[in-house]
Amino acid sequence: MIGASSDPEKLSGRALTRLLQHPFTGDIYAVNPKHPRVGGLAAYPNVAAIGKPVDVALILLPAPLVPDAVKECGEAGVKFAVICSSGFSEDGSSAHLTQELAEAAKQSGVRIVGPNCEGIWSVPENLALTFGSAANRPQLLPGPVSVISQSGSIGAACVRQLQDREIGCRYFVSTGNEQDLTTLDYLEYMIDEGSSRVIALFIEALSDGVRLRQLGARAAARNIRLVALCAGTSSLGKQATATHTGRLSAPAFVYTQMLKRTGIVQVHSIADLITATEAAAIAPSVPARGSNGATGGVSVIALSGGSRALLADAAEELDVPMASFDADSENRLEQVLPRFGYHKNPIDVTGEVVGRPEMLEAVMDIVGADVNTDSIILQYANGAEHILRQHIAGVVDRTDLHERKPLIISTLGRVDDTVRRLITSNGLLHAEDPTEAIKIAGWLYNWADTTSNGSKERLPKPDERRNPAVVPEEWQASMQMLANVGIATPQWCMWDGVMSDAALSKLAYPLVLKASSDVAEHKTELGLVHVGLETPQDLQEAWAAYTQVVGAGVPCIVQEMARGDVEMLLTTRWDSDFGPLLVVGAGGVLAELLQDIVILPIPASKEQIRSAVAELDVWKLLSGYRNATACDVESVVASAHALADYFSYAGRPGAEIEINPLIVGPQGSTAVDVLTVSGIGDPSAAGQAGAVLETVVQPC
Amino acid sequence: MIGASSDPEKLSGRALTRLLQHPFTGDIYAVNPKHPRVGGLAAYPNVAAIGKPVDVALILLPAPLVPDAVKECGEAGVKFAVICSSGFSEDGSSAHLTQELAEAAKQSGVRIVGPNCEGIWSVPENLALTFGSAANRPQLLPGPVSVISQSGSIGAACVRQLQDREIGCRYFVSTGNEQDLTTLDYLEYMIDEGSSRVIALFIEALSDGVRLRQLGARAAARNIRLVALCAGTSSLGKQATATHTGRLSAPAFVYTQMLKRTGIVQVHSIADLITATEAAAIAPSVPARGSNGATGGVSVIALSGGSRALLADAAEELDVPMASFDADSENRLEQVLPRFGYHKNPIDVTGEVVGRPEMLEAVMDIVGADVNTDSIILQYANGAEHILRQHIAGVVDRTDLHERKPLIISTLGRVDDTVRRLITSNGLLHAEDPTEAIKIAGWLYNWADTTSNGSKERLPKPDERRNPAVVPEEWQASMQMLANVGIATPQWCMWDGVMSDAALSKLAYPLVLKASSDVAEHKTELGLVHVGLETPQDLQEAWAAYTQVVGAGVPCIVQEMARGDVEMLLTTRWDSDFGPLLVVGAGGVLAELLQDIVILPIPASKEQIRSAVAELDVWKLLSGYRNATACDVESVVASAHALADYFSYAGRPGAEIEINPLIVGPQGSTAVDVLTVSGIGDPSAAGQAGAVLETVVQPC
Repeated sequence: MIGASSDPEKLSGRALTRLLQHPFTGDIYAVNPKHPRVGGLAAYPNVAAIGKPVDVALILLPAPLVPDAVKECGEAGVKFAVICSSGFSEDGSSAHLTQELAEAAKQSGVRIVGPNCEGIWSVPENLALTFGSAANRPQLLPGPVSVISQSGSIGAACVRQLQDREIGCRYFVSTGNEQDLTTLDYLEYMIDEGSSRVIALFIEALSDGVRLRQLGARAAARNIRLVALCAGTSSLGKQATATHTGRLSAPAFVYTQMLKRTGIVQVHSIADLITATEAAAIAPSVPARGSNGATGGVSVIALSGGSRALLADAAEELDVPMASFDADSENRLEQVLPRFGYHKNPIDVTGEVVGRPEMLEAVMDIVGADVNTDSIILQYANGAEHILRQHIAGVVDRTDLHERKPLIISTLGRVDDTVRRLITSNGLLHAEDPTEAIKIAGWLYNWADTTSNGSKERLPKPDERRNPAVVPEEWQASMQMLANVGIATPQWCMWDGVMSDAALSKLAYPLVLKASSDVAEHKTELGLVHVGLETPQDLQEAWAAYTQVVGAGVPCIVQEMARGDVEMLLTTRWDSDFGPLLVVGAGGVLAELLQDIVILPIPASKEQIRSAVAELDVWKLLSGYRNATACDVESVVASAHALADYFSYAGRPGAEIEINPLIVGPQGSTAVDVLTVSGIGDPSAAGQAGAVLETVVQPC
Repeated sequence: MIGASSDPEKLSGRALTRLLQHPFTGDIYAVNPKHPRVGGLAAYPNVAAIGKPVDVALILLPAPLVPDAVKECGEAGVKFAVICSSGFSEDGSSAHLTQELAEAAKQSGVRIVGPNCEGIWSVPENLALTFGSAANRPQLLPGPVSVISQSGSIGAACVRQLQDREIGCRYFVSTGNEQDLTTLDYLEYMIDEGSSRVIALFIEALSDGVRLRQLGARAAARNIRLVALCAGTSSLGKQATATHTGRLSAPAFVYTQMLKRTGIVQVHSIADLITATEAAAIAPSVPARGSNGATGGVSVIALSGGSRALLADAAEELDVPMASFDADSENRLEQVLPRFGYHKNPIDVTGEVVGRPEMLEAVMDIVGADVNTDSIILQYANGAEHILRQHIAGVVDRTDLHERKPLIISTLGRVDDTVRRLITSNGLLHAEDPTEAIKIAGWLYNWADTTSNGSKERLPKPDERRNPAVVPEEWQASMQMLANVGIATPQWCMWDGVMSDAALSKLAYPLVLKASSDVAEHKTELGLVHVGLETPQDLQEAWAAYTQVVGAGVPCIVQEMARGDVEMLLTTRWDSDFGPLLVVGAGGVLAELLQDIVILPIPASKEQIRSAVAELDVWKLLSGYRNATACDVESVVASAHALADYFSYAGRPGAEIEINPLIVGPQGSTAVDVLTVSGIGDPSAAGQAGAVLETVVQPC
């Protein structure tokens, strides 16, 4: 501990207290050149003076002293430094210190946790390298949960509550400024270490979409549940971008899509992060949505009538399937239940269950054994704690049931901590109201869905990456590029009004005449797009109207008119956080109206694209609206895949390609217009898109 | 108490215990023909034997005995009966008892609460007419909150938690089957009685949209805050309906829209119902959204960095404005705050505030005095209870501040009940995490918005209702009706292919040829709609194509083609719960894709329609998309108003009129197609739409 102090008011004094108050069995060395003893320990004047191998240094010095301390660590063979000190350009004022620290770390080979963090916990070792008050408790309870947080205070709030709820935790990392080691490094370690059943994340910014997805797949394959709360993604502001899609894909939405594709269950409040983490730690698995047939789902046993409606509503709202029981189960339930009960899902066992716990147990057995039951919600009424206490023994005796299927005990409001612990310590989940019960059931499905998707994920091999190309900036070259990679484009030519033009004569009517974007950015608004030209006379009239606006002698584009029913957009762009992304959505006038897009990290398989496209609202139109013939969805998937594949070797920071509209019909898809930005710089240098964005060449 | 019992295991015994355990000062008479004494009271063999005036009877008899007991009450001059007994056709099996009870009530003039309810509380009188366990506590705390619940168990859960949280309550009604008195009757009483500051509702089904809106306006005028949780509205299933709009407007959505238009703040869980009710009871008012200028909003003072991002994200998500401070305030904050703090909203006071409560107080004073501050969130970090306790005295001393502006103390997780009560008993609000803090701030704006709208509401006078008419069922008559009420329609005629037809010769090209809906229901899908016919030759070709499908000799409709940019839909329908409703939304192909509709009760003023239309997503297109000329929105408002006005005297159960599309352009709106159902029966008999729906005449 470098900068150890005896003063319990100082952060460094508090950190020493935390370290000493738990039964850590390793050796602790205090480094403090001013005092011979600190907090009951002999203090060394510097790291070298310790004279024994040291695994990790906890640095609590003022920021200006930190870089030298890191160098000292390197010289003494210390491999890791946890730096709690703040003052490293968090406010932009001390960039030189950040630079010095980076150089010290590089020279010395010391890997850095932080700086500006609350430190780390390793509960199995009783090691709390932190000044934080969350570790100030009689003992640290071990548990199957690890927490990685980009905010010290929020991470600490999580581990405190996990301790209070007696779920416990295993590792906690407050990642601070992530100058060296990042959230993804810690995540990778915890997944590979393998003893965390759930990893909870608080995220403000990530990088590297491909690595994130790989880690998601690895966690899924090992049945490790991931859950994340994101913050600050909206306040980044919209990224500099040339495309419609860029404007549509606000950072918060990109994060939501990336977590979803990665198999990380996203929650939206600290309270939900704790509740979901607890559920992930306790509950057995459920089948993925739909994998237990159309009748599989949550089974509800309710003691309160009004709650049954709330549960059913919440299930509809949160897309949580409700089970339909087998006829045999329903018959057996009808025999067991009182006259005013209800024997279908959600079951009403009525207040009679209060005096007849054996009736509840019989109902539990029938419902638990029904193959359609994925999980069970047992909904109590108001003030039922004493009944719940009576029931719980009988419920818990059904070990076989609740080890196979999650059982959520839902109350109408909070219960005593003792009741709560009675529930959770027996491997059951607790929800404080019907809505929360359904939310928990939904998260369990979400983990199941991602596990089933994740393990199918085929990751690209490095040799699938071809030699770098560059996204062309000319419209003509861009259209040619699309054709080269196999995306259908209409026949077109540049034309200067001469009816005998040879290129023109090869085009088939109906035609479209439009301005090149060199001429005008907002060509639709300026009336510079003439569609549906059926005859040479129509074409001549369009040319006349065109020259009236732009003047004589400016060539236009003439294009065969594409046939189709639905306008889509396909975009690839280089995201400043995640790198290359594929965006597929509703195009044309629907683009900004619907904000109906899905986002995938590149590379993306055809299967991944296909299942993402089915999430779109515009899917209703694609799949045949009001008895119309269905569109050729496979052509959309193939075009998107080809574009993403091209971008995987031609994309670089700042680059964007937007096809809008892609006109889709029963016979295929045609890319009618394209907008490209080549971007500049090294394709491996993500994180710079805003700064390096060059010029907009071809708005559509 | 009719059916009083000494047996504490019976509901009737529990009810007697509740009645006697609180210091109710009125006289209590037990009626029980089998025992001379019950629970320490002399028991009368029947009501008549009491021989003194009785205000209210609590009936706990088995259902078959209840009708006679009600008659007895009537004969003895008892005006009200609270009937807790169940067994009145809740399961559809005892319709005769329900009928008998209705007749007994009618004959005797006794007004009924219930049956099948948990009873009522009047806390100011220490009167708990209930068997429920929520009233089983040493004392009932009075408070400014009343609760009306269509579920006994959920209502009881609410009042229990209000008691536990020491907010208290005033009246509680469990409404049961609402055979006589309804939720709206209780709501009217509580609004007029005037001493409830907030009325919380749990709703499964309402009736009479106009009365609901009148009550909402009356509550708003008296500054009474209304909050509601709805359940079971989704499980009613979609109502029988002929129109697109009917299919779009699922009951749950109708409820959401009706509560919004009525000024009732809707929440979506029991937990939120309690939290919102507590906030409504404690917090002073904020200005309506936008009424404090573009810079007015919530001001955040945070001790935790990570929370600031969460607060900002939640504010964006929940449409809660954040304040921008005056330059003067920012300067003063900069002087007061430590170097690493942040002096704009959200303010970061840093951990230094722990040792310097006077700094927090100075910040509070500056922020509270800033005119842009509508409310304040003071966000604590993890484990800050002891700091919070230190601070609270200084915060509460600023009485002047927090009596004017709501102050929400937000923690990162739960706090001790003692801390929570310290906060709320001082007139401050508590939130358990940043997301909840923003949710509370949002509800405060919602009440302010509805108060400001509600008090402006002009209610229709009865004499504005004209003589009943009937919605016509013929397409031609329906189009004529639209024209009669002032909604523009294109010129059209019925045509049988004769080019010299006189009516045809009056129409101007381009034309549309389409099948009458007598010929085919899905005319678009069958290719029976030909648009953009520019010449007589086009028309003849369309006729040829038409006769190929439908055969010779079947007249078609020929219509002038309407010009416009946006397709809308306008519908009026008779809702089985709320009566006549106006629906305005995106029409044409967008109707089912966007599900972009607003719903208003009829009558609706032009101002109400105008502000609802501005909530639509399609508003982007109407108000001018990508530099396009804005559409004539006033023509949409006028058409909707005219249609609603017509429906207010022509509508009746089962009736629907759907204009789809209404083609809207810069020069006005044109109703191109209409679908009508006349409905049948007495227009005053709501609640029967499904049963009386007649035939579909004209799908578009």
